[in-house]
Amino acid sequence: MPEPQPIDLWFTAGSTYTYLTVMRLDATEAENGVRFRLRPFNLQSIFASANYFPFPAGSPKTAYMWRDIERRAASYGIPLRVPAPYLAKNSALTNHIALLGSQEGWIREFTRAACRRWFQLGEETGGEDHVASSLRDIGQDPQRVLDLARGERIRRLWDTETEHARGLGIFGSPTFAVDSELFWGDDRLEDAVSWRLHGRVVRR
Amino acid sequence: MPEPQPIDLWFTAGSTYTYLTVMRLDATEAENGVRFRLRPFNLQSIFASANYFPFPAGSPKTAYMWRDIERRAASYGIPLRVPAPYLAKNSALTNHIALLGSQEGWIREFTRAACRRWFQLGEETGGEDHVASSLRDIGQDPQRVLDLARGERIRRLWDTETEHARGLGIFGSPTFAVDSELFWGDDRLEDAVSWRLHGRVVRR
Repeated sequence: MPEPQPIDLWFTAGSTYTYLTVMRLDATEAENGVRFRLRPFNLQSIFASANYFPFPAGSPKTAYMWRDIERRAASYGIPLRVPAPYLAKNSALTNHIALLGSQEGWIREFTRAACRRWFQLGEETGGEDHVASSLRDIGQDPQRVLDLARGERIRRLWDTETEHARGLGIFGSPTFAVDSELFWGDDRLEDAVSWRLHGRVVRR
Repeated sequence: MPEPQPIDLWFTAGSTYTYLTVMRLDATEAENGVRFRLRPFNLQSIFASANYFPFPAGSPKTAYMWRDIERRAASYGIPLRVPAPYLAKNSALTNHIALLGSQEGWIREFTRAACRRWFQLGEETGGEDHVASSLRDIGQDPQRVLDLARGERIRRLWDTETEHARGLGIFGSPTFAVDSELFWGDDRLEDAVSWRLHGRVVRR
């Protein structure tokens, strides 16, 4: 039987709920025989176009978000220290490095390392120290990677990927794309897997 | 063993995702030995305070919302015709009638009837014909109910309930309140039930 097409995981490294997804990818693949392809994009620019930001500082929704993530992380057995440093104002650098990693084959390892440092150690994502440490965690040379991640090639690819995401109608992170179907949120991971396997959402 | 305290279901009759919840309440209670108490409130005024509306006409998020509800309704075996008439600009009347129903003991039957007409027959919620038909569906006299629902007593109760919801930090519909824990969205119904039964979110 041919292996199913990958599920595209569109995300920004600055998203909080995406942490849960990143930590669940390997087990989800192993249990279901599916594969995820990680695709970072510029969600901030999509928020800016819509004149929208989901988690304003001090809002009830933002307080809820942290509590919800805390409860769900516990239910999955995922370590978490909340609240982690937020807003993720410097996440562009984390995203650009991840995009380079997608070209070089280490995006998943890097994204997980960056997430761990952000949500388990309390390091703000996208700071120079944070990304350098995350790269060393996975055996990549920070100087080499940073030079490339800040170059013109990655900037162009970043814009192209973001326009692709916008064209698909993506408005949040994480978003799973299965053929022409979108599934938004870590809480839709199972729906996306079900669609890949069965062409519909099946309740367990 | 004493029966567990009810789970408060805070909602507005103008919410789309709340349809899924309303149609799942009876089965969820029967399967889990929990009870829901329906509490309508003025979400529009909370959105207005936050200068926020989640589903602008024509936005990618709104298109996604309908598709997501369609897929999930199918997975639950809940009938649905999408998109149903929206924005629900006249939902205040549906809510005021529901609030009267909470005093008189028929809120659940009315809310379900109003939802069915909105999401299965395509009647805009809160129109005179829609609420009158929904009331006749459950054996209530529309004239009697409308006179009371438009009176001062319900208006005051509506304001009180809305301030209560605001004080709890509620920002969307449906929201389940279990002791001091909030669970937002039809997709958190199982988390809320788990919290009521086990004091934590347990994955099945």
